[in-house]
Amino acid sequence: MRARVIVRLKPGVLDPQGAAVEDALHTLGFTGASNVRVQKLIELDVDAADADACKLLVLEMADQLLRNPVIEDCGVEVLQ
Amino acid sequence: MRARVIVRLKPGVLDPQGAAVEDALHTLGFTGASNVRVQKLIELDVDAADADACKLLVLEMADQLLRNPVIEDCGVEVLQ
Repeated sequence: MRARVIVRLKPGVLDPQGAAVEDALHTLGFTGASNVRVQKLIELDVDAADADACKLLVLEMADQLLRNPVIEDCGVEVLQ
Repeated sequence: MRARVIVRLKPGVLDPQGAAVEDALHTLGFTGASNVRVQKLIELDVDAADADACKLLVLEMADQLLRNPVIEDCGVEVLQ
């Protein structure tokens, strides 16, 4: 079963990489770009009986390894 | 208009970060995890008249800055 984890900085946490991308876009002439946030997306295959079990397992992986719970939230989607 | 860009390594391109995450998951006991790929996800606000214009503009940004066309593909979704 293929799952997708989106790891994003919590609202209010400064995103220096996003700010750098935004500055670079402005320099290139894309002045309409704003509120740029750079996030991590992890896709993986998981051995699980059904979508609910898969989601629980991946949330457990996220809490143990994939995100820093102090500054990051995560969302899990089961793709197939 | 909020848009989302997913920048992923092309199929066949080695993903050392994904391999490291997969090894770490196995070490933690998640032996069912496989085919781990770590990708970039960029969300941004764009000044555009409609969804099609927004998508074209963001693809242009992706080609000029957000992805390395030699090894990376990208997909664009307009969120709202």
